[in-house]
Amino acid sequence: MINVTVWNEYWHEKNEEEVIKIYPEGIHNCIAGFLEKEDGISVRTATLDEPEHGLTDEVLNNTDVLIWWGHKFHTDVSDDIATKVHERVLRGMGFIALHSAHVAKPFLKLIGTSGSLKWRDNDFERLWVVSPGHPIVEGIDEYIELEREEMYGEWFDIPTPDELILLGWFSGGEVFRSGCCWTRGAGKVFYFQPGHESNPSYHIPQIQRIITNSIKWAAPKRILDELYCPHVPVSAEDLRKATGKAAK
Amino acid sequence: MINVTVWNEYWHEKNEEEVIKIYPEGIHNCIAGFLEKEDGISVRTATLDEPEHGLTDEVLNNTDVLIWWGHKFHTDVSDDIATKVHERVLRGMGFIALHSAHVAKPFLKLIGTSGSLKWRDNDFERLWVVSPGHPIVEGIDEYIELEREEMYGEWFDIPTPDELILLGWFSGGEVFRSGCCWTRGAGKVFYFQPGHESNPSYHIPQIQRIITNSIKWAAPKRILDELYCPHVPVSAEDLRKATGKAAK
Amino acid sequence: MINVTVWNEYWHEKNEEEVIKIYPEGIHNCIAGFLEKEDGISVRTATLDEPEHGLTDEVLNNTDVLIWWGHKFHTDVSDDIATKVHERVLRGMGFIALHSAHVAKPFLKLIGTSGSLKWRDNDFERLWVVSPGHPIVEGIDEYIELEREEMYGEWFDIPTPDELILLGWFSGGEVFRSGCCWTRGAGKVFYFQPGHESNPSYHIPQIQRIITNSIKWAAPKRILDELYCPHVPVSAEDLRKATGKAAK
Amino acid sequence: MINVTVWNEYWHEKNEEEVIKIYPEGIHNCIAGFLEKEDGISVRTATLDEPEHGLTDEVLNNTDVLIWWGHKFHTDVSDDIATKVHERVLRGMGFIALHSAHVAKPFLKLIGTSGSLKWRDNDFERLWVVSPGHPIVEGIDEYIELEREEMYGEWFDIPTPDELILLGWFSGGEVFRSGCCWTRGAGKVFYFQPGHESNPSYHIPQIQRIITNSIKWAAPKRILDELYCPHVPVSAEDLRKATGKAAK
Repeated sequence: MINVTVWNEYWHEKNEEEVIKIYPEGIHNCIAGFLEKEDGISVRTATLDEPEHGLTDEVLNNTDVLIWWGHKFHTDVSDDIATKVHERVLRGMGFIALHSAHVAKPFLKLIGTSGSLKWRDNDFERLWVVSPGHPIVEGIDEYIELEREEMYGEWFDIPTPDELILLGWFSGGEVFRSGCCWTRGAGKVFYFQPGHESNPSYHIPQIQRIITNSIKWAAPKRILDELYCPHVPVSAEDLRKATGKAAK
Repeated sequence: MINVTVWNEYWHEKNEEEVIKIYPEGIHNCIAGFLEKEDGISVRTATLDEPEHGLTDEVLNNTDVLIWWGHKFHTDVSDDIATKVHERVLRGMGFIALHSAHVAKPFLKLIGTSGSLKWRDNDFERLWVVSPGHPIVEGIDEYIELEREEMYGEWFDIPTPDELILLGWFSGGEVFRSGCCWTRGAGKVFYFQPGHESNPSYHIPQIQRIITNSIKWAAPKRILDELYCPHVPVSAEDLRKATGKAAK
Repeated sequence: MINVTVWNEYWHEKNEEEVIKIYPEGIHNCIAGFLEKEDGISVRTATLDEPEHGLTDEVLNNTDVLIWWGHKFHTDVSDDIATKVHERVLRGMGFIALHSAHVAKPFLKLIGTSGSLKWRDNDFERLWVVSPGHPIVEGIDEYIELEREEMYGEWFDIPTPDELILLGWFSGGEVFRSGCCWTRGAGKVFYFQPGHESNPSYHIPQIQRIITNSIKWAAPKRILDELYCPHVPVSAEDLRKATGKAAK
Repeated sequence: MINVTVWNEYWHEKNEEEVIKIYPEGIHNCIAGFLEKEDGISVRTATLDEPEHGLTDEVLNNTDVLIWWGHKFHTDVSDDIATKVHERVLRGMGFIALHSAHVAKPFLKLIGTSGSLKWRDNDFERLWVVSPGHPIVEGIDEYIELEREEMYGEWFDIPTPDELILLGWFSGGEVFRSGCCWTRGAGKVFYFQPGHESNPSYHIPQIQRIITNSIKWAAPKRILDELYCPHVPVSAEDLRKATGKAAK
């Protein structure tokens, strides 16, 4: 069983008419909704306004993969929680950064760059698969079309992705690295570009499929107990083993 | 079900006393033996001396992951079969190159370099895990010790691995990139260094675990029908979609 | 001094009216022309119809960076010459593959995949810089616009580039990894997409700048004598050094 | 002219007898000393105890490559200065992290992981070149031997290096990714393992050569004015260009 926590800023869906129509229960519950239908995935949600943003030690310690959606209030996320999320990823937790989480605190701590990009509301996008054998795009055709999505354009200030899965084409003339994988510590990180709050991308089956696939990909193989720098003496037995047997 | 074919040159195990003792049924049957115990894996074997080296179209078309062990007779592998294996990997089949397969024809066609390295028989090796979150080393501790294994040393002429999983330490003073992953086309490729014919590495549970893990990792998510360069006209409908909606 | 050889198939520019107008002296001489103006670069050319395709041992042994343009007659390139070029790159020579060289014999031997892509004549392209700190795009702004260029579209069957420098946007709805770097052996490889024979891309100063930059980037730091697998015994002195000093 | 600033914690060399003997002027002045002999490099130094750690805006804005050595007082580096260094790297400045800078604040901000490793004083090391064509190892033979150096061992918690240049072998049984390159923003980052304060590694010509080479490699090709997320409207002219010419 993969324990998923879907974290959402959850402001637009309570304050903006246009967004309320698309995500009346919030983006987190939309995502939790389609994930719950999957075998082998258990879902909970957490939001900015909850105590500790809903990410208590108990929650984090029982989360295998954390999905993150934030936009307008990145700076309201406490440094303490961002640090805890960061450390939990290094120890093995998967982290899926959605859309405007390109500048979310825990994501920036993980990638080490600014996450800068160009943007413009309401464009038409084609999402091209450029790594057809990757598990994150299992079941996805050559491309996905999004009739309305915010344009995110290069230069996108990210480290070279370990694996580049999707490239976005926008009708206004821009391109974007829209699906990017990194390993950080023992944890896996996926950035996925679609999901502006006023566009219905998370209702689209192919987008749901990619998010679901990414959770399975990011599920930890092990959780490290701690990250530290041990002093390691050489025992007599180690030395016996390590001593130039090549000469025999 | 993952359909695995274990390919072996199968000469040393019929002609060299020392090797016969270690692998009386051949390396291929040793590997097939521990794989058969796994749920979800179906195994067959193929060897150099069989017609078409045992890799008929029928066999290849029903193989999800091909394991390759060869050493003394790389040049006896027909170019035709090497080409078929190469193409099948690009279309999605996984490929696990073991030990001296570092210069096997299909492996060289996949990596694009010479596979050159240093070597010396009978050293002591420590295999260090350098990517602890990777599925290929699930269940493996910090390192594995091999009391006797052939030294393979840098410089190893390979392309930068997409993922570097294991580093080898040898008591004579050498290091080696011993576990390396690449994506080629829609297929996944893993090179794994242990396995000299006169050392019992494939009898060691941790080595077996890594090979088993690598098969699950390399199992195809899709098999492409063909690899070609299509001309793609723009339809009126495509044009409508692709036409600067950004201005609206 | 960087010794550059510009290789060209040189057929279209002798046989197609439209192409003759754009490159009356051949693409190779157009490229040699702007390279000759650079300090520190010495240029020669070679073409398909010359003996050994103009790539004798003497020429190859005195080439630091080889530029390759081919399109219609890839299969007319002899396997022997392709093999020599491949080996010379592994030993350190730089290799710049232009446009339809995505399926040139030496390029395919280097990358290990099929080089497959989509194509369509005569589109409008924007080439976006996605690695602004890279020497290959020194002096290039955010993007370059090509009023007319052949569309090359994803999925492009290449190994994950070690460095991805440029992404192409085409008005018909496609994207492309248009500037890609790899290391192979001791040599550097750059693929650069623009340059259909009936479009004047090599006359555009920014395209010329990128090609010139790529030559400086690909110039060898050393040329290896040979690529082979040496047996390396451990000397008494090596053993002394390699023997567990850690215990002291 | 490449403007280099060598930053040093500069404590051991004033307080520990053993270290004073090796680096009587401090590690920073030892490094500045051999760099000053190079054509095209201009050097200054900065240390922890200076105001703003010697890294004022004026200094940083005139630094092309920053070398960083710190060990005992990483946490005494102010967050403000660490943030400024981080931003300057993203805008284009090169950053060379030496030895125990594996957990220096600006380095950790750049890589996004914990930098954890194993350690043990006083071992024998062989540094193997694994990327012989890379400019950082120009002029370096197959390996460098260090008679006495601190052991740093895997697992080293770093992101997959964009380029892995050197692997360390230690006589006690450990291996280490000792020379690692990353791109962050428009800047280049190199981590280089040798240099424990009580070992004379920075007096060794080959180690000096690698540091000198790394400066030339890391020198910026451009400095970005700022890192931000611009809104980019589509002009009528842009739209004309971006509008499906493919149909013509």
